[in-house]
Amino acid sequence: MNPIRRSTLPHGLRVVTEHVPGARAFNIGVFVGVGSRDEGPGEHGASHFLEHVLFKGTPTRTAEEISAAVERFGGDLNAYTTREYTCFHARVLDDQAGTALDVLTDMLSRSLVTATDLGTEREVILDEIAMHDDDPSEVAIEGVIAALFDGTMLAPTVIGSSTSIRRMSTQRVRDYWRRTYTSGRIVVCAVGDVDHDSLCAALADLDEALTGPREAHRTPARPSARRPVRVRSNDLSQTSVVLGFETFGNRDPRREALALLAVALGGGMSSRLFLEVRERRALAYTIDCSESAWSDAGLMTIDWQALPGRTAEIMDVVRTIVVDVRENGITADELDAAKGQLVGQSILHYENPGSRMSRLGAAELAGEQRTLDEMLDAFHAVTLDEVNALARDVLAPAPVISMAGAAAPRGAAHRLREGWARGDIAH
Amino acid sequence: MNPIRRSTLPHGLRVVTEHVPGARAFNIGVFVGVGSRDEGPGEHGASHFLEHVLFKGTPTRTAEEISAAVERFGGDLNAYTTREYTCFHARVLDDQAGTALDVLTDMLSRSLVTATDLGTEREVILDEIAMHDDDPSEVAIEGVIAALFDGTMLAPTVIGSSTSIRRMSTQRVRDYWRRTYTSGRIVVCAVGDVDHDSLCAALADLDEALTGPREAHRTPARPSARRPVRVRSNDLSQTSVVLGFETFGNRDPRREALALLAVALGGGMSSRLFLEVRERRALAYTIDCSESAWSDAGLMTIDWQALPGRTAEIMDVVRTIVVDVRENGITADELDAAKGQLVGQSILHYENPGSRMSRLGAAELAGEQRTLDEMLDAFHAVTLDEVNALARDVLAPAPVISMAGAAAPRGAAHRLREGWARGDIAH
Repeated sequence: MNPIRRSTLPHGLRVVTEHVPGARAFNIGVFVGVGSRDEGPGEHGASHFLEHVLFKGTPTRTAEEISAAVERFGGDLNAYTTREYTCFHARVLDDQAGTALDVLTDMLSRSLVTATDLGTEREVILDEIAMHDDDPSEVAIEGVIAALFDGTMLAPTVIGSSTSIRRMSTQRVRDYWRRTYTSGRIVVCAVGDVDHDSLCAALADLDEALTGPREAHRTPARPSARRPVRVRSNDLSQTSVVLGFETFGNRDPRREALALLAVALGGGMSSRLFLEVRERRALAYTIDCSESAWSDAGLMTIDWQALPGRTAEIMDVVRTIVVDVRENGITADELDAAKGQLVGQSILHYENPGSRMSRLGAAELAGEQRTLDEMLDAFHAVTLDEVNALARDVLAPAPVISMAGAAAPRGAAHRLREGWARGDIAH
Repeated sequence: MNPIRRSTLPHGLRVVTEHVPGARAFNIGVFVGVGSRDEGPGEHGASHFLEHVLFKGTPTRTAEEISAAVERFGGDLNAYTTREYTCFHARVLDDQAGTALDVLTDMLSRSLVTATDLGTEREVILDEIAMHDDDPSEVAIEGVIAALFDGTMLAPTVIGSSTSIRRMSTQRVRDYWRRTYTSGRIVVCAVGDVDHDSLCAALADLDEALTGPREAHRTPARPSARRPVRVRSNDLSQTSVVLGFETFGNRDPRREALALLAVALGGGMSSRLFLEVRERRALAYTIDCSESAWSDAGLMTIDWQALPGRTAEIMDVVRTIVVDVRENGITADELDAAKGQLVGQSILHYENPGSRMSRLGAAELAGEQRTLDEMLDAFHAVTLDEVNALARDVLAPAPVISMAGAAAPRGAAHRLREGWARGDIAH
């Protein structure tokens, strides 16, 4: 019997469960299909601000009572916001499943969202912005997204800017909440020793405030412009560098080929980039290639942190490898190894109930559920020609370059990009 | 039947397994009971340096073949070094268990440890030092350890200094390896669908190079001096602050009372510190209290990151809470909540095979194995009087203060500490 069950309730809310007999841990997530790319003028950072404020209290629970309800039995309650969705999640002991569900639905439908609470959380978010700004790896990756998707709603950070957060009124956050948190956009996902029908029954009488249609129109993320470099400088010892290549959405038929390409290039200690940059030349502690995607757009990144004096040399090594893969492709043995790696990782990943819950919820929002076997089959089916055709495509343009940390002047980044395009990086 | 089995082989190596029927993931760790505190003059950073070099190749495997052997079936192979032990670990699919064990024993007993490989890894470690130096949270916590345990071998960082790493010769690293990696100091720990007897049989014919006695004499960490503050300044937006209180070793009978005290003070979103500093006053994104311990020494820390202008006010709030807990204790309800939290967390933690493996291996090195029920019983048995007597003790001295990041001048840190001692922090 397939342990995964899906239902759509009459008011449109979707429920996905995976039954793990005998599990002591109950993992539940409420996924709301709204994130920063859905924000309108004056709303930059509203999805994340709202996520924070929903922890501050309801008519029957203070902020302290919300967190204590779950924590005092050893559970976790937390949330995160992405560009396309917001997830509130809890992991509790099995006998606390009912409490976790109660608290989550109470927060999402009946929070007070007062001006006082907004004032307090505004300060917390300004702190969180400062914290992100102090992390050069994060600044560099956000820089690549901003550069690649300039002019679209994928470009801004999820958290908002100090200005947008300072200006956001209580009414605006409340309006955003009531407009976007609607049953048609919500997926409740649970993994554990859970009874699917009971969970559906518990969610049948949803608070009226949450009842609403499925999907707002989402503007496609077609970049109209592109800024080739982004930089930000600090007095740190190292520079974080991220190179970005534009790819495609998370339902594209080439996504498995892309994942395999990224693994062969830089997905571990036996990848081409790691072997050359770290293992042979010791130019950086690590170097990584990975890919990520939203519904209609995506990117592949190559990133490292190193002493600033090594940036040009690393860039040159990376370029040589990228050009070789673009022109000659990866080998059949590299493809086999990459398949083995992703197949094995998928099976191992699948043993973790928390990551299963996250994957199930996100997949439901994306409109697709596949079994583990279907995922593995999709990797096995990819041919060498498909990967290498994709490499020729994706790796053709010079990447955008984002740098943060030590000695990251804009001029140097521009020169590196020009050198990449010319095939001649001076170092 | 108890799924945990322990054996000591004739050459002294200990084997601990936990049988999880039907698990697809096989987690294995080789724990060597040697870390930075066991290093002698001229050896600062040798444990961690050696850990790196052991990945570089053996007579039958290159560095690439070592990582590829595990990665090409989706597994991970990695290692870490602490002040008291070094752990090499792999997580692989069940049918790759034999490969993982082969690779690990090959690395530990037969690595080539050439001058060339040392030269390459030296550069990588210098990069890793720069990376750590760029992380103010890590700099601040290391600063507290250095300040509290000044004059003992617990004070230096595990990774070593640029100077000690630059100076370390190949011969010194090889000598350190052959002196300290002996069967009497090694624990092999596996969690999965593992057969204990087969694992013991596979380890019976250990390479002669690894055969040796149990325990070198370890110098107790009795701090002779103490530097009350440590600071390091960067042009970042936030300051990382860590306050440190000295506690005791990881076998002390008061350890459960200490864990409960730390939870009540700052172990989550319903703790006293979080509620006051984040929830009510929005002075920092988060604040945390936690404790950690080695065999004969330990510490409790309170840490946060915030804008530098808020340091004094946060310190004042923290001091008020700490003094209240020291003088009046925590309440019976806080103790109940803390017990519920740690009991629940222990049960949930126990469902993760990777963390079970880490815990089992470390516990065996510490000379103690307890079942989950024994751990839970130990929490339940703690009385309010025990926690509050401990609070009077541990929280009596003014804490050492370590700051890193924005605007962390030494004078300010000294004034804050004097203000703490006087009960009057100006802000």
